[in-house]
Amino acid sequence: VIDWALERDLERSFEAARATRERIARHVRVTPLLDCEGPTQRALKLECLQRTGSFKVRGAAAALSAGERPHAVIAASTGNHGLAVAALAGTLRLPCRVFVPATAAPAKLALLAASGAELTRVAGDPLEAELAAREAADAAGALLVAPYNDPQVILGQATIGLELLEQVPLAPDALFVAVGGGGLISGVALALRERWAQTRIVGCVAAASPALADAVGAGRAIDSRLEPTLADASAGNIEADSITIAAAAALVDRFELIEEDEIAAAMRAALLEHHLVIEGASALALAGSLRSQAADGARHVVVLGGGNVGADTLRAILG
Amino acid sequence: VIDWALERDLERSFEAARATRERIARHVRVTPLLDCEGPTQRALKLECLQRTGSFKVRGAAAALSAGERPHAVIAASTGNHGLAVAALAGTLRLPCRVFVPATAAPAKLALLAASGAELTRVAGDPLEAELAAREAADAAGALLVAPYNDPQVILGQATIGLELLEQVPLAPDALFVAVGGGGLISGVALALRERWAQTRIVGCVAAASPALADAVGAGRAIDSRLEPTLADASAGNIEADSITIAAAAALVDRFELIEEDEIAAAMRAALLEHHLVIEGASALALAGSLRSQAADGARHVVVLGGGNVGADTLRAILG
Repeated sequence: VIDWALERDLERSFEAARATRERIARHVRVTPLLDCEGPTQRALKLECLQRTGSFKVRGAAAALSAGERPHAVIAASTGNHGLAVAALAGTLRLPCRVFVPATAAPAKLALLAASGAELTRVAGDPLEAELAAREAADAAGALLVAPYNDPQVILGQATIGLELLEQVPLAPDALFVAVGGGGLISGVALALRERWAQTRIVGCVAAASPALADAVGAGRAIDSRLEPTLADASAGNIEADSITIAAAAALVDRFELIEEDEIAAAMRAALLEHHLVIEGASALALAGSLRSQAADGARHVVVLGGGNVGADTLRAILG
Repeated sequence: VIDWALERDLERSFEAARATRERIARHVRVTPLLDCEGPTQRALKLECLQRTGSFKVRGAAAALSAGERPHAVIAASTGNHGLAVAALAGTLRLPCRVFVPATAAPAKLALLAASGAELTRVAGDPLEAELAAREAADAAGALLVAPYNDPQVILGQATIGLELLEQVPLAPDALFVAVGGGGLISGVALALRERWAQTRIVGCVAAASPALADAVGAGRAIDSRLEPTLADASAGNIEADSITIAAAAALVDRFELIEEDEIAAAMRAALLEHHLVIEGASALALAGSLRSQAADGARHVVVLGGGNVGADTLRAILG
């Protein structure tokens, strides 16, 4: 069991992340770091080239390997988290059920189905699917893998930070990470906070759906703006008891609220300048970095968390 | 001076490539290798993430650093080669002129102009621009950097092979490389031919523009089909005296002629499955590998040479 009082025991969390990295090594890729030239020296951490197309596979691998081997796995998701859990369950030859809201996009459901998971459609919004998944897991004694509100999942995402420590020779001036439920930024920040003490850790939130930034501001989960966004993978409300609220409050220096046109521009720049397909949530982080690019010679590290975008969205982005 | 009788002296060429790699190291990225799962184990060499967006920067850096520092640099190109030469000239603070055919696409000209090179428009086709560039270089005593028919340029491209030797633990069953003028495949093959003795080296040529494959078949440059192709970066006739004809004849196991619909499908697969923007010429190599993917458990290495694609082409590909 991990003591999740991050502000008190960062060093112990760091060691836990190192142990997690060893445990999940065979399930995840060490993703490349791409150095870009320009007035701002920008290094892109390419989790969009991660297995299953996003960083989520790290957290899922950590959760699935944390305790005894489960006899079945359950998750609620229509996106990257579901794909990651389903792919790992496939590798480990574990039966897997993914609960999806009835409103989910057919394209994403097809991807999930192709991964070999059993899909269960739930009437209502994502929260209903999550509750149904929890009930089913309790009833079946299956392992429910949470998308962000779980220390093991956060330690999985922390392995990105451990890789950055090896790949980036000098602590950068700023680190940009997209923020949805906060699992990614909590993990990366816990790995880097002490080693990169002078680096500003910037959480990049969709202005259309800034739940975690609002929660950190208020000291608790509150009702947030919840509008459609290109950053669908990081949109949505946050669980009221999420451990990522305290973690982000302790570890993140500031939040940037990113507008939809900035997300689109960053996706376009990734396509045409960097030759990368990144999803809207990843574009949040790149857009955060692009905002402050006037600062000559600044060194930025940008975590690009995923690349799962449909052809329709790409067409729309290309205008 | 390099003895370019490859079939007689591969080991000496290999050593020359190693020396070239050291010489150009500060100008090029070591590009990542991306391992993909599937019935075919496919590893993608991501030269699309190379500086200036293509492998051409390796050959250009090799040519520019081979002898005494030139006082000026000249190239003829509207695409990757021109971008690479212009970028390196900028880094080395050398004046650079690029001769472009009057028929060149405005978008590519804009990119070239942004790189700081002086553009000279030449009436007629690419060959006219090449001749004009050669004349200007002779008159000015400037260094003319050739796109493929130059041992130094080929040794630059060979450094991709040296990286592959370090990145790929076990010689693969087949290596897929796009073929235009043949500089890329000649270089990569000379670095790998002896070390990967059992690997089939497959040259992937646009069926719409198969000049080098035709030349190897006939033993000399002949009139080839020359139709528009998505693989514009590897299209065009080949110089009659090109050293790449003998090199490819000696080192390439077979050629695959790739159709336009296969190029488009490979570009789409790169976008939607691998989250990479690759240009048509790179898609040739991926398409070559996809053709033979029925062979279970085969190990392929695919060189993705570049990612410079305009928004229009991407939109067309996405359909």
